[in-house]
Amino acid sequence: MVLIHPGGFTVWFTGLSGAGKTTVARLVGEELERLDLAVEHLDGDVVRTHLSGGLGFSKSDRDANVDRIGWVASRLTRHGAAVLVSSISPYEAMRRRARERVEAYGAFVEVFVDVSLEECARRDVKGLYARAFAGEIEHFTGVSDPYEPPSNPDLVVRTGDEDPHASARRVLDKLAELGVVPDGARV
Amino acid sequence: MVLIHPGGFTVWFTGLSGAGKTTVARLVGEELERLDLAVEHLDGDVVRTHLSGGLGFSKSDRDANVDRIGWVASRLTRHGAAVLVSSISPYEAMRRRARERVEAYGAFVEVFVDVSLEECARRDVKGLYARAFAGEIEHFTGVSDPYEPPSNPDLVVRTGDEDPHASARRVLDKLAELGVVPDGARV
Repeated sequence: MVLIHPGGFTVWFTGLSGAGKTTVARLVGEELERLDLAVEHLDGDVVRTHLSGGLGFSKSDRDANVDRIGWVASRLTRHGAAVLVSSISPYEAMRRRARERVEAYGAFVEVFVDVSLEECARRDVKGLYARAFAGEIEHFTGVSDPYEPPSNPDLVVRTGDEDPHASARRVLDKLAELGVVPDGARV
Repeated sequence: MVLIHPGGFTVWFTGLSGAGKTTVARLVGEELERLDLAVEHLDGDVVRTHLSGGLGFSKSDRDANVDRIGWVASRLTRHGAAVLVSSISPYEAMRRRARERVEAYGAFVEVFVDVSLEECARRDVKGLYARAFAGEIEHFTGVSDPYEPPSNPDLVVRTGDEDPHASARRVLDKLAELGVVPDGARV
């Protein structure tokens, strides 16, 4: 038995609502499971259910939410999990804090899912943008609340210009390049 | 690499404020680390900082807090951690829910730290009982809020009658008996 299971890491997908964070993270997760990694997907909705019930969308509540995800991600990384986070996480400072927490135990890979507000609003999968533009939702990122793009992301994927599978492939290539998934794996 | 790291488990210490849950859990944790296990101690205060900031002590907030701890404990158990929870966790139903979550991945060992209200109030390490009896703290477990003792705990320790080291030793003996710490380990 070992004190710390080696090999844990966190891939943190940040971007606007509807950018495709969850979709790409799921595809990455499926491939990581095929590689026999123990995946934990901390998706925005899962987290709001299990960790952050009661928190809203003010800056302080958003910060608390992201900080909580970062803390759990760091604990799981310590124990060897392949952690996938998909969360708007709009503030650079809180993403940096998450990185610091995680890097105490394993790699932190920030993936900016970079899709324009116009494209996200056009997709409007959940019908939220229409309501946000109509003023029915306060604190909606990109509409009535800020989004700070990563200044130095480990990877940028643009699901507006490529298929989500292609984006997932590039994430997996990056993980192989960083040595956090096995060399020579079919990724 | 394996999909699930085997061997994770959660020891859940429940009992009144001041019963000695944290003290015994720390002693157990130190010994588990000597056995090279990867320990995560989800202590009441740690959890209130990292997971449950903003929650109070109403029944619904207490339930949310305990449910959150149970969820995190289950995720960590899945990845092979030796999880120690020290939390008043006054309601049987929520402890049962935590057990169900954890047992999907590993053993759940409920330890009732059974010390009388009178003894806890006499110790009053944090000065909280004096304030609770004076009516200055609402929802104080055992004084102005219920505590439901476990109906079927895996182990009962009474730090009123024995040294915390003796209590910790009995927890470790139980873990050895359950086979979740190595056979023949000096516990």
